Amino acid sequence: MKLKVKNLPIATGNIIIAVLCERDATNLDLQPADRILLKCGRKKVVATVDITSSLEGDGKYKKTMIHPGQIGLFYEAQEALKLKSGRYVEIFSAQKPESLHYIRRKLNGKKLSKQEIYEIISDITKGNLSDVEMSYFVAGSFIHELDMEEVAELTNAMVSSGKVLKFNKKIIVDKHCIGGVAANRTSMVVVPILAAAGLTVPKTSSRSITSAAGTADTVEVLCPVTLSLSKMKSVVKKTNACLVWGGAMNLAPADDKIIQVEHPLSIDPEGQLLASILAKKKSVSATHVLIDIPVGRGAKIIDMKQANGLKNKFEQLGKKLNMKIKVIITDGSQPIGNGIGPSLEARDVLWTLKNSSRGSTLLRDKSLLMAGGLLELTCKAKKGKGVSMARSILESGKAYEKLIEIVKAQGGKERKPDKIRLARKKYDVCAPNSGIIKHIDNGLMNKIARIAGAPHDQEAGLYLYYHKGSKVKKGERLFTVYSDSSERLKYAIDVWRKLKGIEIK
Amino acid sequence: MKLKVKNLPIATGNIIIAVLCERDATNLDLQPADRILLKCGRKKVVATVDITSSLEGDGKYKKTMIHPGQIGLFYEAQEALKLKSGRYVEIFSAQKPESLHYIRRKLNGKKLSKQEIYEIISDITKGNLSDVEMSYFVAGSFIHELDMEEVAELTNAMVSSGKVLKFNKKIIVDKHCIGGVAANRTSMVVVPILAAAGLTVPKTSSRSITSAAGTADTVEVLCPVTLSLSKMKSVVKKTNACLVWGGAMNLAPADDKIIQVEHPLSIDPEGQLLASILAKKKSVSATHVLIDIPVGRGAKIIDMKQANGLKNKFEQLGKKLNMKIKVIITDGSQPIGNGIGPSLEARDVLWTLKNSSRGSTLLRDKSLLMAGGLLELTCKAKKGKGVSMARSILESGKAYEKLIEIVKAQGGKERKPDKIRLARKKYDVCAPNSGIIKHIDNGLMNKIARIAGAPHDQEAGLYLYYHKGSKVKKGERLFTVYSDSSERLKYAIDVWRKLKGIEIK
Repeated sequence: MKLKVKNLPIATGNIIIAVLCERDATNLDLQPADRILLKCGRKKVVATVDITSSLEGDGKYKKTMIHPGQIGLFYEAQEALKLKSGRYVEIFSAQKPESLHYIRRKLNGKKLSKQEIYEIISDITKGNLSDVEMSYFVAGSFIHELDMEEVAELTNAMVSSGKVLKFNKKIIVDKHCIGGVAANRTSMVVVPILAAAGLTVPKTSSRSITSAAGTADTVEVLCPVTLSLSKMKSVVKKTNACLVWGGAMNLAPADDKIIQVEHPLSIDPEGQLLASILAKKKSVSATHVLIDIPVGRGAKIIDMKQANGLKNKFEQLGKKLNMKIKVIITDGSQPIGNGIGPSLEARDVLWTLKNSSRGSTLLRDKSLLMAGGLLELTCKAKKGKGVSMARSILESGKAYEKLIEIVKAQGGKERKPDKIRLARKKYDVCAPNSGIIKHIDNGLMNKIARIAGAPHDQEAGLYLYYHKGSKVKKGERLFTVYSDSSERLKYAIDVWRKLKGIEIK
Repeated sequence: MKLKVKNLPIATGNIIIAVLCERDATNLDLQPADRILLKCGRKKVVATVDITSSLEGDGKYKKTMIHPGQIGLFYEAQEALKLKSGRYVEIFSAQKPESLHYIRRKLNGKKLSKQEIYEIISDITKGNLSDVEMSYFVAGSFIHELDMEEVAELTNAMVSSGKVLKFNKKIIVDKHCIGGVAANRTSMVVVPILAAAGLTVPKTSSRSITSAAGTADTVEVLCPVTLSLSKMKSVVKKTNACLVWGGAMNLAPADDKIIQVEHPLSIDPEGQLLASILAKKKSVSATHVLIDIPVGRGAKIIDMKQANGLKNKFEQLGKKLNMKIKVIITDGSQPIGNGIGPSLEARDVLWTLKNSSRGSTLLRDKSLLMAGGLLELTCKAKKGKGVSMARSILESGKAYEKLIEIVKAQGGKERKPDKIRLARKKYDVCAPNSGIIKHIDNGLMNKIARIAGAPHDQEAGLYLYYHKGSKVKKGERLFTVYSDSSERLKYAIDVWRKLKGIEIK
């Protein structure tokens, strides 16, 4: 059967979609999510069927819809066929991908083989699986947890779904913090220390999803973070390190697609989490990796039992993937730095690297612990001597110099922390009573900074004057909110008043 | 934030979608599947966000895509806002539906309350849940099976999602056969018998999904089956019964949407199956329902244990729903009628109702059993006397007259079975050896009839000369395939040769 092409101005970003009207779909015995092979001369592509409803009842078709005899092509199908609207394609039935059987097996609680996992990930990468089909995979591995072998194969399959960066070095270092803690900008301190010690650290980071700033958002205050792969490699060659946004790199792209269908229900199966993190590390050929699991009230992981379970799995997985992995469990019960929001966090990082008294003690101590751990893991430092080696690099000013070197190589320039602008409108939140600060809620602090405008407004956010354990008097400033919009500022204060987030007892 | 409307020529058939470009989505901090409120004057609608990729890398947008500052509206959103392209809408963030929390609870193995189930079904009906979100609901209830209370609430919620037909009668009769058996056209025999006995039978049927003909496809050989609700009611008023296609009726529409996301993986959680069947029955106010569970090799349900389990659940559910339900377990190991395909099956039905020797014995016997069961269930017949009452109605010719009455009321006319045309090209398949027929495979017989052209080509299909237990000689005709296309005929024969489907020993 031949149908007339109508190119539609829609892209899915991945999945190859062809749209038929109900009547043609019935005649061809097709249902939504069935596959068809489209052919014109030598060009061909397998597309997933979408069916437009005949919105005005039987027999009548809305002017703007796909009519009988037409086939609507989304952008991805247009790219494959390169046909103008009005040309004809021939339609053949096509088998559904084999990987759907494997997804069904997982839903039924079966263990997947290496080949099955590779097939699923390969089909996700090629755009052969619809969102609905991917979400069954996520649901299956959410309820029937993947075992360590499956997670290892999933990681390898995800790595092979995209580019893999190679460096001519025996040791490649990387680090990752499980999210959920505000102002946790350790990468910007740890990476320069390690690079100054001569280690290679091709660090890719994400942008914020639910927090007020991701590492990529914060680095962007100082320099561009969207680099091409070759530019990234040249930065690493020049400076031993980089601090770039991973999203532009096409590293383990199947992972990004899976994360998209996890988002609607905020589902994050542990197996997917493990594979997602280590696939990104393997994609930059990391050999030595430090994983930070922040634990505590208000963190993503609340109790030590869960944290130790996850630690254990990371270590097992590291062995299977032939990576040296060190896992540390840290206090995640409050924000790390003082500033929350891209510019506010960038200031903290610079002050800390400059050994200024305005630097953040928590950020400094945590970064030294992490850098020290990696110096020992890579045998740059003797056991027990990592932290002091990291401290001497930091105190010598070499780490700060290294950061500026990286910033310049990525196309930015040195900025004085005092000169980094903050949003003009501000509001001081004061202690409602005297006492000791018992809790500062990460989620709520992030929320207030986001409402103020972070991360899209770099200059928005908030600045904490105290951390847990501090003694404050009634009426003393607890934090200042910065925003360019008085409406946003008002709303942020309103949320603070309703939900609080700092306990003083 | 205001964005310029661009109406897109796409309908989802249900879900309200608005499309943003990546840049605007980032600025508004939106991700795919987030919700936004669109407002223009008094008109407003909550839409699910879809994001088009910037296909040519950073900053550049393809001519045909949604540009920064634009918002693409799919048909359902256009309907709600009724704005021309070029007008502006204001965008506000909107909460995700509460029902997503409930779907997540089901994924976590929790039992859902009545209110939670109603909320999910209501959101599905209104187009508030995306396909991905619905598929998590299906996956959750596939792995963590719904209990009887949940199934009952799901059924009620599905009923209330659409129209409910009311008849001014105390007793409303209905029947349903679990699918999978070829040529199982009992409704066309049972309904006229019951209507002739004075019972009200507003029968809605489906079209074929994987078989060679559904009841709706077969009735359509004789008369229209796509009736409006009011037309259907007038047919029932006039004749006590009808035989219409349920798809056009808006009965329990949430069910149809759930079935759509079950299709890609052929997942059919038992709870959904039960609710789906009984919601359709409750939507026509059925009080007395007979359920047929065909069991055997080649049927949907293979063993008696599973069949008895399902029977049990139907009976429990009937009590909860205040419906009188009788379940029979029948032999589903071979096709029931002789013809397979709409016209071939219509001929069988007419011959059987006319008490012709060309009628199908299996169809007749099974229909009498079912009609008898319902005559007893409704107390039209005394216990043990149902089948003989049904037989005397059939033999009197009153059931045939009733069918013709229904056919005429629906807009068709009486046709002689011998005059019903079959496809011109035919091929006789002969016995490869002598012996007794041990097995006739439903799936394969359906497949051959479908390849021949059924159900879209009404006249295509196949005619079986023998059923199980018959003695045949080598070279004797087993069945004849009918098709209008010699290519299709050739392919059908090829499939027969490869897969067989009739065992003679």
